Amino acid sequence: MNELNFRINKNKFYNALSVANRAVSSNSPIPALSGIRIDAAEGKLILTASDVNTSIKAELCSDQDDSLGLNIIQEGSIVIDAKYLMDIVKKIDSEDISVSIIDGTLTHFAGQKAEFKINGYRPEDYPVIDFSEPSVNIDFKYSVLSSLISETAFAASVKETRPVLMGVNLKSDGSTLTCTATDSYRLARKTVSVESEQFSVTVPARTLFDARSIFQDSEDVRVALNQKKIQFIGNGIVLQSNLLEGGYPETDRLIPKEFSRRLVINRLSLIQAIDRTSFIKTDNMTIIRLQINSSDDISLSNKSQEIGESHESLNAVSYEGEPIDISFSGTYVSDAVKALSSENVTVSFTGEMKPFIIQNDAEDKTLLQLVLPVRTYN
Amino acid sequence: MNELNFRINKNKFYNALSVANRAVSSNSPIPALSGIRIDAAEGKLILTASDVNTSIKAELCSDQDDSLGLNIIQEGSIVIDAKYLMDIVKKIDSEDISVSIIDGTLTHFAGQKAEFKINGYRPEDYPVIDFSEPSVNIDFKYSVLSSLISETAFAASVKETRPVLMGVNLKSDGSTLTCTATDSYRLARKTVSVESEQFSVTVPARTLFDARSIFQDSEDVRVALNQKKIQFIGNGIVLQSNLLEGGYPETDRLIPKEFSRRLVINRLSLIQAIDRTSFIKTDNMTIIRLQINSSDDISLSNKSQEIGESHESLNAVSYEGEPIDISFSGTYVSDAVKALSSENVTVSFTGEMKPFIIQNDAEDKTLLQLVLPVRTYN
Repeated sequence: MNELNFRINKNKFYNALSVANRAVSSNSPIPALSGIRIDAAEGKLILTASDVNTSIKAELCSDQDDSLGLNIIQEGSIVIDAKYLMDIVKKIDSEDISVSIIDGTLTHFAGQKAEFKINGYRPEDYPVIDFSEPSVNIDFKYSVLSSLISETAFAASVKETRPVLMGVNLKSDGSTLTCTATDSYRLARKTVSVESEQFSVTVPARTLFDARSIFQDSEDVRVALNQKKIQFIGNGIVLQSNLLEGGYPETDRLIPKEFSRRLVINRLSLIQAIDRTSFIKTDNMTIIRLQINSSDDISLSNKSQEIGESHESLNAVSYEGEPIDISFSGTYVSDAVKALSSENVTVSFTGEMKPFIIQNDAEDKTLLQLVLPVRTYN
Repeated sequence: MNELNFRINKNKFYNALSVANRAVSSNSPIPALSGIRIDAAEGKLILTASDVNTSIKAELCSDQDDSLGLNIIQEGSIVIDAKYLMDIVKKIDSEDISVSIIDGTLTHFAGQKAEFKINGYRPEDYPVIDFSEPSVNIDFKYSVLSSLISETAFAASVKETRPVLMGVNLKSDGSTLTCTATDSYRLARKTVSVESEQFSVTVPARTLFDARSIFQDSEDVRVALNQKKIQFIGNGIVLQSNLLEGGYPETDRLIPKEFSRRLVINRLSLIQAIDRTSFIKTDNMTIIRLQINSSDDISLSNKSQEIGESHESLNAVSYEGEPIDISFSGTYVSDAVKALSSENVTVSFTGEMKPFIIQNDAEDKTLLQLVLPVRTYN
């Protein structure tokens, strides 16, 4: 017979439910996956949510947090629709909330004067999720992991035509971790020093964005992986995702090593100039033409038959090399420049129809953004 | 030949464009209506936008505002797509923006280093809009007009099946203005003292919400009307709308005058209790059952076959009359109570299947909210 009875601080419970809720799938063929599974046992509350590919486990344990106010009167398990559960816990009229099974899957939630009886799902109908920790692992500072994600994951593809490009490739040679994302029109690459075994895995960009949000309050995050799955672990939370299958393309040869021209320009002024002209689109793309003669003769323009045209003159910190006349997607260059962080950024060109790279500093080889030019007929 | 050349403060221009933009229609059969018309003449800039039913005119005049920085070098007119115009003016790289016609409808916008050439529409292709002021008028304090709108317009219908119910009926007997909105399941009525001719007109609720937003910074707003249209006038802005056609239903007889039971209850606690249970829906409606035996024996409950049920006990300030067991739409009662403003609200009942009214205070006859009960088979 199903039993369960516990009491817990409303806000702490709600925060943990909000984390788990990220993995809830709203339209799964398995009805129980629209719920969050609650297990109370051995003085701990474990929340589980999954959309099959991504799963989250959040543990709440009084030992680690006095203000949790967790009191398990009767151990047990239930699955409750995530929408209803979040709504009840958020709005309950008291600091603590009581949760107990009345009959079968009918679950009682009580605050001070408000109470709810909600039909849940049987825990037996919830898929078994293997949260065992893979053996290869790396310990990150959250700040390092978070930067790494922000600097690369945006460049992954959003098209499902080549699923492996929807992820970020993490490749370790034992001492350096290289993180690469590309949608085949642009590429972002970041390297960090690590100590680990060698591996090469591709993690869905969505999982990385989830990790960046979920572990905001954690100082450290452990990443554990094998050839099938990856886990992010910290603060009593495990975020687990299947890896993307298929070989990740060899991208090293795409990145030019020699450059004929180099522009150093204020990061914000470049972002703003592109943003100003982004409403002028051709075939739904903002195609920007950059013409550089010298550091004080730079023009950025954009033209559309239908809408009109824009023109802006820019001043650079410096420019070395022959004049250049090159066109590119405004969105791609803007995304790339936004993912950098220094006051001035360095743009290195090899030719008008060759990929160019954008870096915080030409000397800093750990982070680069690459963009392919667009052919135009101006 | 088309000419135009002026300079104006970017922020002031943008704010006026934002007001006008509310009337721009994104999918009009008349292409020019996707634009905002700009007329520069006699030291003034006039912005016009319209979706045929609703039109807005905003005048910018240096005489009234030094910081406007308006300098008209060449009088003239142009129509520019509202989206592009808003985007350019918002992001231009200088405090002032220059606007001039280069050739035909090709219009030049210039900041400091950024410039745009945008294809506009010919002013001759923009419909002529008659902004002549109707003769019947009432001067309102903005605060009075704004309350009147917030207290009634939400109760208008959103269904197009009976267009006249999508408006608020304004009826003046010469000394009292009665504002009524109903979707035939609920009704809101507010009366204010006025001095005016007698009239009865029905104004689209959307126009009233626009007026509430547009004139936020105006102390006074003049309302002018005839049998065809209504205008809201203040701060150099005219918001004009066609009235809804068709006789407004006679609603006086719907409002009960005698009551057998009266509940006085804390406004916020009632709103919160309804909000807590609003996720429990039957046929997409939150149907709440209120059972009152005495001021300290009140229960609010909600039940759905599929989801489950809620129960909450409430304390009232007072209750007079026989016990009652009544069901209603939680949304309707919540909307009505939110439109009131006193700490405690009074709910007056005549019977379990009769409309009930909710007021700030039973003695205050100027504002009432009426809701029809729902028949249930609990």
